[in-house]
Amino acid sequence: MVNIGIIGVGTVGASVVKILQKNRDIITARAGKEIRIVKGVVRDLAKHRDIDIPLTTDPYEVTDDPNIDIVVELMGGVEEAYKIVRRALENKKAVVTANKALLAYHRYDLKELAKDLPFEFEASVAGGIPIIKALREGLSANHIEAIRGIMNGTCNYILTKMANEGASFDEVLAEAQRLGYAEADPTFDIEGFDAAHKLLILASIAYGIDAKPEDILIEGITKIDKLDFEFAEEFGYAIKLLTIAKKRGNEVELRVHPTLIQKSEMIAKVDGVMNGVSVIGDAVGETMYYGPGAGGDATASAVISNIIDIARGGKCSPMLGFKKPLESGMHLAPKESITSKYYLRLVVDDRPGILAKIASIFGEEAISIESMLQKPAKEGLANLLLSTHTTQEAAIQKALSALQTQEFLKQAPVMIRIET
Amino acid sequence: MVNIGIIGVGTVGASVVKILQKNRDIITARAGKEIRIVKGVVRDLAKHRDIDIPLTTDPYEVTDDPNIDIVVELMGGVEEAYKIVRRALENKKAVVTANKALLAYHRYDLKELAKDLPFEFEASVAGGIPIIKALREGLSANHIEAIRGIMNGTCNYILTKMANEGASFDEVLAEAQRLGYAEADPTFDIEGFDAAHKLLILASIAYGIDAKPEDILIEGITKIDKLDFEFAEEFGYAIKLLTIAKKRGNEVELRVHPTLIQKSEMIAKVDGVMNGVSVIGDAVGETMYYGPGAGGDATASAVISNIIDIARGGKCSPMLGFKKPLESGMHLAPKESITSKYYLRLVVDDRPGILAKIASIFGEEAISIESMLQKPAKEGLANLLLSTHTTQEAAIQKALSALQTQEFLKQAPVMIRIET
Repeated sequence: MVNIGIIGVGTVGASVVKILQKNRDIITARAGKEIRIVKGVVRDLAKHRDIDIPLTTDPYEVTDDPNIDIVVELMGGVEEAYKIVRRALENKKAVVTANKALLAYHRYDLKELAKDLPFEFEASVAGGIPIIKALREGLSANHIEAIRGIMNGTCNYILTKMANEGASFDEVLAEAQRLGYAEADPTFDIEGFDAAHKLLILASIAYGIDAKPEDILIEGITKIDKLDFEFAEEFGYAIKLLTIAKKRGNEVELRVHPTLIQKSEMIAKVDGVMNGVSVIGDAVGETMYYGPGAGGDATASAVISNIIDIARGGKCSPMLGFKKPLESGMHLAPKESITSKYYLRLVVDDRPGILAKIASIFGEEAISIESMLQKPAKEGLANLLLSTHTTQEAAIQKALSALQTQEFLKQAPVMIRIET
Repeated sequence: MVNIGIIGVGTVGASVVKILQKNRDIITARAGKEIRIVKGVVRDLAKHRDIDIPLTTDPYEVTDDPNIDIVVELMGGVEEAYKIVRRALENKKAVVTANKALLAYHRYDLKELAKDLPFEFEASVAGGIPIIKALREGLSANHIEAIRGIMNGTCNYILTKMANEGASFDEVLAEAQRLGYAEADPTFDIEGFDAAHKLLILASIAYGIDAKPEDILIEGITKIDKLDFEFAEEFGYAIKLLTIAKKRGNEVELRVHPTLIQKSEMIAKVDGVMNGVSVIGDAVGETMYYGPGAGGDATASAVISNIIDIARGGKCSPMLGFKKPLESGMHLAPKESITSKYYLRLVVDDRPGILAKIASIFGEEAISIESMLQKPAKEGLANLLLSTHTTQEAAIQKALSALQTQEFLKQAPVMIRIET
């Protein structure tokens, strides 16, 4: 018998309770033990819930209960959750969490505190897809050359709809909110922060990198326009919010941004609210993992898989993948040193000489243009859609600054990185 | 320090040696221990190899060496490998194998013998894709409703080429043999046996079913014709050799056969020599795993991940997923009870009254037709391409038998199941 307490019985917590009951037979057969829920912690005892477990409002009733073996943290948030998880570890409980924000900030101090206690977090990245296990255990023989993930279902839903229906960002966001695929305040998703939290967790496992969200390049999808999809279509690209990790020697680029990527790539085929993570290892080559990145039952599937692993009695992996850091420790690459191809959309006056001026600004930064489309805009304006050959982030940023001082530019330029 | 011996140093074995050396830094950091190769076993000591480890021709020098902790079996074949692996287990060695044929026949007796000794076999299914780990550990909270796999790269390469280039089976097979994607004797791959071995391993983990290759429906891809791809194209299907497991109550259908599947499904997008496995769980929904199913380095990636897991000192999972069988044990469904939609290609005399006769034969088995295409054939013949609504395998087999006695049928009918 393994006894668990669940802190936070919202959508995911209720699914954990329900699936543990419904699939009791197969879970017991696989774990070799029965898994019993001792107690759940909620904010409001009066609220109606369709579950039948003892409830309390005090999380410390769970962290301090000598009968509880595993504390399952599903409350979300950072600092309060951090306090509670620390207390559980201090009391020598195993911990299972789905809390990506907690891990984005505190994974290394929690690892330090957990030592050999099981501390699992499969549900924190890409919901029901067992990507943590794949990366940490399945691909452990590999130097990870790159990770490219679609790890935010809200953004992927919006971008897929914009691509397929030629709809505007605002229209699709409103629809996503009606359907429950986007929050009333969607900032955290559409500005890329949610995806960034997940990327940081994967980057620890792949590279042992202790970066925080504020250390890495994060851009959201709010500036993408129908016109960008027209360019993408013309040149065979999809537009996706990608989380990217790329190894260059001892440095790793970590970044989250809208990306143009060839439609023929498997990751470009991940549509709608689904998630996908492509991992390139130096031995295995490319493997990809696809599935639902959110939803109560899918997330609960990952949470329970961690509970079963712990019940099975093994502890196959160090929490963040490494027993001790590599001596040739990897570093985060500075944002300015990123190299990429770039797509730019410029709204300019439609008159002679403008192209020459733009070309000269690019020329000064040694940026060479690969392809260009001109589309008419209203009232004497033109849309210039162009892509560059590979160049450095620092160069493109300087060129963008220079462009912004030009009187012929009628709107802030839009830039999307191209993944090759 | 963990000491291993490798029995069979061919393509995969040599990759294991090479990657353990090349990635020593990261592998040691992840395993927490150095992994040392004590000895390799080969058939022919005189053959030149690009590896620098002590070699012998006697496998028992490895199985009986008190300094060796893990025996890595990469020799292939069934009965000789079985003897050697048994000996390793009797000597209390952990075992890692990539040998699917061995497991297709002997996984339950080896499980019995292994007891609590680590016995891992990630590389036996879908090469570098960590599908065993995903299914056994990542999805352990789920009743598995279905598995649909593309697990033979040779077949997938041939079918993808036939689809894209309108080439014939024989032409593409010859090309695959030139490129090294098909063996000189390709029977084992193109007749579906290789994929069937892998399916049986997954079926044990998902359902605890102890079936052998001869117990399940296995059909190869040799009868597929260009015309079948024309029908597929017309109705939005891809043709893939799928390994299918489907749960129906306490019964499980296990089958390997060419399959028409809607192009919009993720598994239908797996092209060329790549593998993919889609798993549907009752909690998580569909997840899919994609990557290289063969090749020395990709397969070695999986082998080494198992070695690292064992070195890490944990034993997270029982060998075949269950600590003890379910009391509501699952059974293999009889072949005749399979239900599916079916596609048929009939070469018939091109004269009035034939369609009525065919319709009456189907009518007698209560099979209803969903769609039909007629294509001209040479010399007064016609190709009838038709698909049925869902019906039972037994009914379609009776109808096929009845058709074969008709004088208007000019060639054995071709039947392909349709996956919905």
